[in-house]
Amino acid sequence: MIKRNPSIANIKAGYLFPEIAKRRREYAAAHPEANIISLGVGNTTEPILPHIDAGLVNGAKRLSTAEGYSGYGDEQGLTGLREKIAEVIYQGKVKSEEVFISDGAKCDIGRLQLLFGAGIPVAVQDPSYPVYVDGSVLIGAAGAWAGTGYGGISYLPCTAENDYFPDLSLIPENGLFYFCSPNNPTGAVANREQLGALVAAALRKGSVIIYDAAYAEYIRDPALPKSIYEIAGARTCAIEVNSFSKPAGFTGVRLGWTVVPLELSYASGEKVNADWNRICTTIFNGASNIAQAGGLVALESEGLKEIRELCDFYLGNAKLIRQALRELDITCVGGDNSPYIWARFPGRDSWEVFAEILEKCQVVTTPGAGFGPAGQSFIRFSAFGHRTDVEEACKRLSKLRITTDHTD
Amino acid sequence: MIKRNPSIANIKAGYLFPEIAKRRREYAAAHPEANIISLGVGNTTEPILPHIDAGLVNGAKRLSTAEGYSGYGDEQGLTGLREKIAEVIYQGKVKSEEVFISDGAKCDIGRLQLLFGAGIPVAVQDPSYPVYVDGSVLIGAAGAWAGTGYGGISYLPCTAENDYFPDLSLIPENGLFYFCSPNNPTGAVANREQLGALVAAALRKGSVIIYDAAYAEYIRDPALPKSIYEIAGARTCAIEVNSFSKPAGFTGVRLGWTVVPLELSYASGEKVNADWNRICTTIFNGASNIAQAGGLVALESEGLKEIRELCDFYLGNAKLIRQALRELDITCVGGDNSPYIWARFPGRDSWEVFAEILEKCQVVTTPGAGFGPAGQSFIRFSAFGHRTDVEEACKRLSKLRITTDHTD
Repeated sequence: MIKRNPSIANIKAGYLFPEIAKRRREYAAAHPEANIISLGVGNTTEPILPHIDAGLVNGAKRLSTAEGYSGYGDEQGLTGLREKIAEVIYQGKVKSEEVFISDGAKCDIGRLQLLFGAGIPVAVQDPSYPVYVDGSVLIGAAGAWAGTGYGGISYLPCTAENDYFPDLSLIPENGLFYFCSPNNPTGAVANREQLGALVAAALRKGSVIIYDAAYAEYIRDPALPKSIYEIAGARTCAIEVNSFSKPAGFTGVRLGWTVVPLELSYASGEKVNADWNRICTTIFNGASNIAQAGGLVALESEGLKEIRELCDFYLGNAKLIRQALRELDITCVGGDNSPYIWARFPGRDSWEVFAEILEKCQVVTTPGAGFGPAGQSFIRFSAFGHRTDVEEACKRLSKLRITTDHTD
Repeated sequence: MIKRNPSIANIKAGYLFPEIAKRRREYAAAHPEANIISLGVGNTTEPILPHIDAGLVNGAKRLSTAEGYSGYGDEQGLTGLREKIAEVIYQGKVKSEEVFISDGAKCDIGRLQLLFGAGIPVAVQDPSYPVYVDGSVLIGAAGAWAGTGYGGISYLPCTAENDYFPDLSLIPENGLFYFCSPNNPTGAVANREQLGALVAAALRKGSVIIYDAAYAEYIRDPALPKSIYEIAGARTCAIEVNSFSKPAGFTGVRLGWTVVPLELSYASGEKVNADWNRICTTIFNGASNIAQAGGLVALESEGLKEIRELCDFYLGNAKLIRQALRELDITCVGGDNSPYIWARFPGRDSWEVFAEILEKCQVVTTPGAGFGPAGQSFIRFSAFGHRTDVEEACKRLSKLRITTDHTD
């Protein structure tokens, strides 16, 4: 019989969010009367706004007409959408042939791991979005489990002590470094100086940055960069992953993109862009043509207004959550230029705090330990939710008294 | 600087269909007056029929309403769609929790290769859909290139001599065997006896069949099985990949599924289903909710009628192409229960025949060699096209005189 892939056997426990969903289901089964509110998974809740939704509807409608029907398109995406992203999102800082349309950032991260393979050292921010680590394990790049993390992965702590920005001297040489800003889960946003240092470190180390900008549209401070390509030198060392999920409410629609600059090369001189093209044409078949029709109108001026409006709504939620936590004297960061709030419970185990908040408030959160060892005494609150639910959750949280060790 | 992944460096030339598109573009540039017709890529051309398209439109419309909006769903797909596939397509022969909804068969094949990894012997029918081989190369399972194929892949010839059904004794032990029926490219459909022998061989060898049933809805002969699960024993040795692309015209919409039976286990006893679930939740985020809304109505009785009507249309095209080829005394198979016709040009190189047909008829086809060494003197004609184009292509083909070596 067939052998199990050792890389699959190497992966720990369940993927974080299905695990949370399971615990929520168990709690609901035991407490059928409970009205559980989720500030856990970063899942959009508000309807897609009219101009963008009309684009999706029209995309679906025209498939029933001889003139409007389309089958397989280019795996790299509609030329018009690639051009529009290059122009509107990057103001010409990237070229359309460097933009590859996808069915979302998570899926593209999986394909990027296939692109670079098992032989490259990997580093992540700690805490970080679990797919960077779990996907690296699946491809065989993570090494063996070593207690709190994988031996082949460098975890770069992002803590209150370093203002949630890692010590860049820890980036491995000739490797990959996943960097997310605005950060999931901490909500921290790297400033221009920090990103300058990041690019300089990557160039010095000969490493490639996988820059996850999925929350860029939540940035309101005009001094903060929305793309790594605002930084000189990034075109020779950074790939940027992005998505329509959080700005346009496309989490279910599935549309994202990845930028691979033509200047990005391997040690041997070949262009990474050409290999990425090969990956996308071989094991991917393009994002849905309906989703792409929606993406096109989302980048029109009316669509961009709707994106701003939708992000503003969730940022309004974030403000409420931050206030509620601060009134409880719980230290937190994020939520001003990002939809996540990262709250600290010194000396506590995050799964225990998760359980306590669920038990006392019937509010689902995300335990920080799910994002890496440095998340141990943190809880991530997501600002994605209906306003009434967020208000109700904040009211319940206001009664929360969680014992913490303030000497931690 | 970062090293290039040796598995990527190991892959040969371009992916077949982009390569054909390139040659077509070059021909068009050199002959701007030519009215080129494609019988090449298997890309659907006819509009989505009204009932199914209304399902897509409604799926898009309700995303703008508070009641109808949905964000991330389960990565495995809508429960209702999983149930409907289990019931309508498999008449209860598979369970809903064994059905995983995807953005298409090609993408799922890539993820299956990640599931099984680099350490498993791989076998393919020769000729076969290029993704089985190219994807295996990307994951590092193919070994080194060895002249006409990869050293680590067993190519099982499917030729006129064996009626396009391989010698099953060549399936490796404890490995993977990709089997496609109705076959792409040969158009051959395995009968019940052949599939019984296939399952028996897989069980004897301890190997897993990846059964690609993407063209099953083109089967018109009621004696031919549409699913591997019609065969006793398949639940312990076969994974089935399928798609809405060709039956419902969803090539651009992106919707498919994979069945991983709960009885399928590794040598060590763990269930493959659980690992597949882990892969899908880790590096995939579900098919588009709009596409899934379309899939749901496609499986209603009105939708199934439309699927039959659409497949009948393309089978009508196939009949015309077959007739045209037979009048030219060109031997061909397929096209009766499949949308592909596999035409033989004894003694000729298929890329040369491809170029000759393009030059003389302005018709794009697919050279057999692109599907494997045994495809060398064959051309695949695809029945996907507008009727008027297919009629015009057949008229042009009727003037074709291609020199072949009838002693081959």
